[in-house]
Amino acid sequence: MLKNKRALVIVAHGSRREASNAEVRQLAQVIAGKVGERFMQVESAFLELAEPSIPDGIEKCIQAGADEVIVLPYFLSAGRHVSQDIPAEVEIKRKQYPHTSISIAAYLGADERVAELMASLA
Amino acid sequence: MLKNKRALVIVAHGSRREASNAEVRQLAQVIAGKVGERFMQVESAFLELAEPSIPDGIEKCIQAGADEVIVLPYFLSAGRHVSQDIPAEVEIKRKQYPHTSISIAAYLGADERVAELMASLA
Repeated sequence: MLKNKRALVIVAHGSRREASNAEVRQLAQVIAGKVGERFMQVESAFLELAEPSIPDGIEKCIQAGADEVIVLPYFLSAGRHVSQDIPAEVEIKRKQYPHTSISIAAYLGADERVAELMASLA
Repeated sequence: MLKNKRALVIVAHGSRREASNAEVRQLAQVIAGKVGERFMQVESAFLELAEPSIPDGIEKCIQAGADEVIVLPYFLSAGRHVSQDIPAEVEIKRKQYPHTSISIAAYLGADERVAELMASLA
């Protein structure tokens, strides 16, 4: 049986406030529990102000044996970070590992279920 | 029959990029469609960089006849904005309208269903 070699990197902005970064790392662990067999590994990474960087997060997955990496932006709006900065960071690793599939999934805020969730919080 | 006099204010950070602010205003409209009879009115407001401000968003609801206003932070982490800045803005209107109930709901990122949603996006 072929082993699943897909990895997931949850990318957040990163904060000077360490508790916010810790929230993201914990979220990645919770997500790891939910994606189950679909991913061999789930990492968290940060655009700025916290470690690991996005390239380092992707590198961790590749070093662990992943041949496919999906980057999932934990962002609410399609600003410059989502449209330019994250793709630029991802491109660094795409150039370094041309035979590894590295893709970027839709950012959280793009999903219409966010409105549903907000409505239920009101 | 008593008319429902509850209003909801969706609060986002605000962006220099107008398309991001427009996304939030549209989200508020979608949420308005989902909360249905529970709220007489749903407004959007911004902590900075966009209009209306949080006090102005609350004011709109009160001018429309609301006697209860719920502020719902469209934020992913419990940073300074959620813990200090939004409450400080809300306090301005609480002092001005001591007989109106103005409360702050849990921010989006606090909800465990966010992890579920992220897992489904991966």
